[in-house]
Parts: sequence; structure tokens; C-alpha cells
Amino acid sequence: MENQNQWGEIEPSISAMSTFNPIRELLSTSQEKQPGQKSEQTLINLSLGDPTLYGNLKINKQGVDAVDEALKSFECNGYLPGMGKLEARQAIAQSYSNEEHVVDPSNVVLASGCSGALLLCITSLLNPGDNILIPKPGFSLYKTIASSYGIEYKTYNLLPEKQWEINLEELESLVDAKTKAILVNNPSNPCGSNYSKKHLLEIIAFCEKHRLPIIADEIYRDIVFSGEEFYPFYSLTNSVPVLTTGGLAKQFLVPGWRLGWVVVHDPLGNFEKVKRGLMALSNLILGPNSLIQGAIPKILNPTSDNTNFKAHLNLVLEKNAKVCEDALSSVEGLTVVKPQGAMYCMVVINTCNFKDIRNGYDFYHALKWEENVEILPGEVFDFPNSFRIVLAPPEDVMLEAAHRIKRFCERHRV
Amino acid sequence: MENQNQWGEIEPSISAMSTFNPIRELLSTSQEKQPGQKSEQTLINLSLGDPTLYGNLKINKQGVDAVDEALKSFECNGYLPGMGKLEARQAIAQSYSNEEHVVDPSNVVLASGCSGALLLCITSLLNPGDNILIPKPGFSLYKTIASSYGIEYKTYNLLPEKQWEINLEELESLVDAKTKAILVNNPSNPCGSNYSKKHLLEIIAFCEKHRLPIIADEIYRDIVFSGEEFYPFYSLTNSVPVLTTGGLAKQFLVPGWRLGWVVVHDPLGNFEKVKRGLMALSNLILGPNSLIQGAIPKILNPTSDNTNFKAHLNLVLEKNAKVCEDALSSVEGLTVVKPQGAMYCMVVINTCNFKDIRNGYDFYHALKWEENVEILPGEVFDFPNSFRIVLAPPEDVMLEAAHRIKRFCERHRV
Ligand SMILES: Cc1ncc(COP(=O)(O)O)c(C=O)c1O
Ligand SMILES: Cc1ncc(COP(=O)(O)O)c(C=O)c1O
Repeated sequence: MENQNQWGEIEPSISAMSTFNPIRELLSTSQEKQPGQKSEQTLINLSLGDPTLYGNLKINKQGVDAVDEALKSFECNGYLPGMGKLEARQAIAQSYSNEEHVVDPSNVVLASGCSGALLLCITSLLNPGDNILIPKPGFSLYKTIASSYGIEYKTYNLLPEKQWEINLEELESLVDAKTKAILVNNPSNPCGSNYSKKHLLEIIAFCEKHRLPIIADEIYRDIVFSGEEFYPFYSLTNSVPVLTTGGLAKQFLVPGWRLGWVVVHDPLGNFEKVKRGLMALSNLILGPNSLIQGAIPKILNPTSDNTNFKAHLNLVLEKNAKVCEDALSSVEGLTVVKPQGAMYCMVVINTCNFKDIRNGYDFYHALKWEENVEILPGEVFDFPNSFRIVLAPPEDVMLEAAHRIKRFCERHRV
Repeated sequence: MENQNQWGEIEPSISAMSTFNPIRELLSTSQEKQPGQKSEQTLINLSLGDPTLYGNLKINKQGVDAVDEALKSFECNGYLPGMGKLEARQAIAQSYSNEEHVVDPSNVVLASGCSGALLLCITSLLNPGDNILIPKPGFSLYKTIASSYGIEYKTYNLLPEKQWEINLEELESLVDAKTKAILVNNPSNPCGSNYSKKHLLEIIAFCEKHRLPIIADEIYRDIVFSGEEFYPFYSLTNSVPVLTTGGLAKQFLVPGWRLGWVVVHDPLGNFEKVKRGLMALSNLILGPNSLIQGAIPKILNPTSDNTNFKAHLNLVLEKNAKVCEDALSSVEGLTVVKPQGAMYCMVVINTCNFKDIRNGYDFYHALKWEENVEILPGEVFDFPNSFRIVLAPPEDVMLEAAHRIKRFCERHRV
């Protein structure tokens, strides 16, 4: 009776059609396209920021036991408040508190991963037509979320020659009446940078001047290398309202668990309504998995085991950073910006030095095809002519990857 | 240097301010207000649709073992595709397939609970300003989501005297050029109804006539009582596109796990773009917890243990339904609509029979205060002068609750 012609193609919403995740798109299409390689070598995957890929980095026993206990108790299966279980929020608040700064659990809202936390922050602060300042290069999700909600963004440049600090002069020129927030990601994906206290204070001064709240994406907090110190944004200001986002994904090596949070810093009480907004929005999908919420107090418990575990992670990442620097800094046409933290090394490609590499995508495709090494082109982070290396694999894999990249560059240079 | 006056109150987004979950609001404020009771009796909580509250209903060993295995394997901690792990989607597709209907895993998209699945469906089909038809009485989240996104809704009436069937004549009058979908919830929260095949076919005919896709919220699928059969919407039409939402929450007694899904039924190929939209939106927060995704094939595996487990759940709920009917049908001023499935019993209040109960809220507050029994007023489901009882507690608790409600009514009647 009915047929296709009568119904026709049903149009999805504008929001759905405006939602585009370049990393996921690139990886899913490149995996479908077969054959994707010429090389007979095993695949080395340095593309997705997933530290669990090689099995060398795992959550510790303390974390696993905590979830096990929650599972066996049968007491962590029920609904929880949208903003999260009190005990979980307490433990997170505690982990952000020190002698000088005490975070109250009422200022913590749980979410489905740091992605969910960013979604809450951006959509609670901005209306369609408003704009947010986001970093370039930067994690692509910021744009994905904004576009999905009809929120505008303006990208501000990070300077590779200044360890990816923000070009503050340019930043000044971007602000207009519709600018409602600035997003700063520190330590940074994809840059691997960790800002100095001085630079963070400069950013804060800028925000004070323009009355701009900060969304501080600190999912890589404390993941910094020797000689570096990580300063949470909120700890450096007694006036600027800050929404800090974080989660278990990177520090505890469980990105699939989808457990993130927002910590509200509101020293002068400007964020009362925004806090209520965050909570209201958190009731839409009712927060992250209850087993993990139940386990959070034990997962975060600052035992010496946890201290060692975190130190080990940073060491592995730092060693791999060194491997990349050592192997690639001497390659003509590549500029390695020394990583200071997070899990990434950004490499700038001077295309003039190459015969047939016109941009990051060329580098990505050819490297995959010829050497079966998968990195991500800087283009997906809005930084053309560069690529990002994930620093999480075992050291021998990292060495082999660096070797293959080097060989690849030599083959392609002018 | 800075002070509160200079910054002023920062306004949250319109979306955040338009997001309102009446159940969560009512329960959180009523828990804050102390003292909330006169009665010295223990609290009987029949308000939240959480079957785990009393500990009498628990996920089976098969389910717990599956998660345990995922946890101990260390192979379910990484990122997964936004739409979900293939093996999980396969198992879900399988659970919707039979000899006549085979669901392809590519038509399954995972989400953060059935709430997340509903969010995906509604926001992938409707733009701000479009409208969706939703049931009255109905689960409040439909409105919460629509309002949060600037999507309009029109409520269609369910008729208590016809076992909560849709008033189809009225439905006809609601459709306009901006109507983009109808949401049907079967078995129903709060009604406890389960539609006959005949009625489902009538709804499908209506949708064919108006070219309206169906969002079929079937989170309570298969939870039906003796003599009832559950028909999934999609199985009854070869033309109307249907987005079915479901999840583990109710059937497997783990609402906190936040594992839901959308199953796309697109017999004539009208939903190609909508499917891509669903997938794009699923990349915003990257799906539900990976341990549960890893466990899904084992959780859903149709063993005899699972069959018994489900039969037991239905039996417990049916017995409790009987307790409520037996105790309350004879109470003057109350009309119990016999439940056929789901986890609820709706009771209509004839306020003329009461001295001082003007509506469902009065009933709710006074019952809580005097008898320490917490139900939900029909008002939160958009059905004034009624209340909803959750049928999940142990039978003795149910008996005691029914007894207290009866006593309460006798005390208040004219
Ligand atoms: C800077 C940054 N923010 C947020 C996220 C998302 O974290 P989650 O996996 O917890 O959603 C990532 C993940 O790669 C990230 O790199
Ligand atoms: C009809 C209906 N749909 C959806 C949901 C949400 O389910 P979940 O907890 O999986 O998000 C509920 C929960 O009570 C419900 O009653």
C-alpha cells in the first residue's frame, strides 16, 4: 500500500546534520577503505588518544577492586541524582582541595566522560548565536559540540615557537559582545603543552578585563613531565568564575568508562544560576554509570599505590616523548615541539622539504599506506601541515614507529 | 580588585533554564524540606521507578558475571565507537530478531540509558519549532527533552476507561505541518498498560496516513502480566519508519548502569539520513560505559536462567498489582485501572469523595506526612487528580502500603 516514494527521505534535524566529529569520521572511513596499506609491517596505531590500546598501561588494582566491590554489593545498581552520587562528588571535591582551596561537593557535577562535562559547560553558558573562544590547534570536540548546538566559535592561535602559549594580542581582537566564554585546555591535546603559572595568570587577567568565564578543560591534570608543575586554573583566581572539566579517562586509563565531571569555581557568586543550569541539564540523561560512581571514592583515594601508579604513567609518557624527540628532531622538514605533558607530541611539517607531501592529510595517508603507522593529521585539530603522535604505546613500539616515520620522511624529502 | 558587582550574575543559556525534570525536582525538594512527616512509621517509597530500591529485585548471576569478566579482562576499558561496540549491537539486534524480522546490527545505536536514546531520537528528528505528539499521562522526560531543545510538543490523551488507549479522534486534530513524529510508550509509564495488536495497528494506520515516524519507547518490553502479549511496534509495520528505544534498566534491574539503545526500523529506506544523524549525535559523548557494553552479549544471552529471571520479575510485579487492586478498588473515591504490564499502577482520585484532597499533590503531601508513604502525584505525568504506585517492593511492603493508603483515604473522605 505504502511505498518509498510516498514517504520520501525524512530529513534529520539541523543539529544532527551539523554534528561532525572529524577524528571519528577520519578513522572510521579510513578503516572501511580497503586496502589501506601497502606495507606488510604490523599496524602501529598512534592516532586515537586511547592509552589502553596496547595493554601496557592499565588501571591499578585499587581501581579494579573498587568497581568489583560496587558490582558485588548490589547496592550500586539503582538510579542516582543527575548530578551524581554524593560520595563520588565528595571524593572528587577532595581531590581538588588543598590547604588553600577547599572545593565543596555541591560544586561538583558528574557527567558522561569529560566529553559530557564539556557538553554541560558549553550548553549551560551559551545560546545559539553566542560565541566561545577555542584553541587552535585544539581538541575537535569543542567545535563539534558548538556546531551541533548552533553556537559560534572563534579560534585563537597557540604559538608552537612559544611552547604553544596563547597569542594574547590576537585573543584581544576576537572578543565581541556575543563572546560568552573562553575554553582553555591545559595540559593540551594535541599540543602536549603545560602552561606556566605566569601564562595562566596572563589569561586570567584577560578574562577579568573582558568579564569572560573560563571553561578549563583539565582532563590531563597532573600528567606533566620532569621539571613541570601543573596549576589548576581555578587555584589562581579569586574573581574569575571557572568551570573545570576532568575525568577518569586519561589519568586512570579508563576512557571507555565514561566518567567525567565539572567542578564549579565561583569565588564571587556570579555563577549561582549557571550552577542550577548545569544541574538541570544533568537531569536529561541522569549522569554516568552507577558502578563507577560507587567506586570513585576508592579509585581516587590518595594511597601510595595511586601515587606510584600516576608517577609510572608520567614516566612512560615522558620516555616516549624523548624517543620521538630524539628520532625526529634531526629529520629535515620536521619540527618537534618538545612535549611538557598530556599524552601527545605535535610535529610540524615543513612541506617545502618534501616532494609529495602537501599537508597533514597527505602525510597521514602515505604513512599509513607505506609504513602502516597511523598518526593523526594536524588538520583535524585545525592546525594544517602537522601531525600528532600518541605517546602511550610500549617503548619498543614507539621506537619502531619513530624509525618508520624517519625512514618515510627520508624517502619523501626533496 | 574585582568584586561581585562588577561581574554581576552570569545568565545561563535559555536551554539550561528551560530544562525541568518535574519528578527529580519534586523528590529532591520534598527530601530537603524537613520535617516531612508526622507518622512514626517507616518510609515506604513507591515514587521513583527504580526496582532496585528494596533489594528484593536484583540482576541475575549471569549479568553480574558478565560485567565481572569484562572488568577483569582489562580489554573493555578503551574508547568504543560512538554508536557502540559491534558485539553489543549484534546481541541487541539478535534480541529484537525472530523468524519473521531480522534486525541488522547497523541499525542499533547505543546510548546513555533509554533517556539518552530518547534524547538521540527526539533531537535527530526535530528542529526547534517543530512539534512532537506525546502521551498524557506520560513519562515527564519527553517534555523535559523537548523544552530543553526548543522543540514543541502536543499532548494526546490516553483514556483510562479504555485501558489507556489513545483517543485517536483527538489525535487526528493535533497534527499540523510542523508535526514531525509521534512518541508512543508501550508498556506504559505511568499507566501500566500494554496495548493490543489491534490498537497498535490503529496507531500505525494513523502514522501512515499522516506520514509520521514513530518513536516507540519500549523500555518495558516483555514486562507484561498473565494473558497479555507484548508486540514491538516495528514488527507490525512494513512501511512506517520506527525508532524503538530500550535498555537494560528495567528488564535487568540496573537503571544506574545507564545502558540504553535505539533500534532503527526503516523498511522502505526513508531513514537513511536520520540514521546518519543518530550516529553523528552519538559521537558527541561517545556512548555508554564500556564494561557494560562488553558484558551485553552475555547479559542478553537467552539462557533458561534469563527466561526464569524475567518470568520471576513479571510475577512479582503482577502479584503486587493484584495487592493494590484488591485493597484499593473498594475504596470510595479511588479508581484503580488494572495494570497489564510495566511496573506501575495508576489510581484516579475522585476529589468529590474527599474532604481536603483537591488534587494529586494534596494526596502526595498528606499521605507522606501522615502515613510516610511516598507515591507520585499524577500531575508530574500531566494527569491531575491521580497518583502512581510503583509495583516493585516486596509483597509485605506492598500490602502494608496498600493498607496505609486505604486507611488514609478513609480518614479523609467526605
Ligand atoms: C582535551 C580533551 N578533552 C576532553 C576529552 C574527552 O574525554 P572523555 O573521554 O572523558 O570524554 C579528551 C579526550 O581525548 C581530550 O583530549
Ligand atoms: C517510559 C520510560 N522511558 C524511559 C525511561 C528512562 O530509562 P533509563 O533509566 O534507561 O534512562 C524510563 C524510566 O523510568 C521510563 O519510565
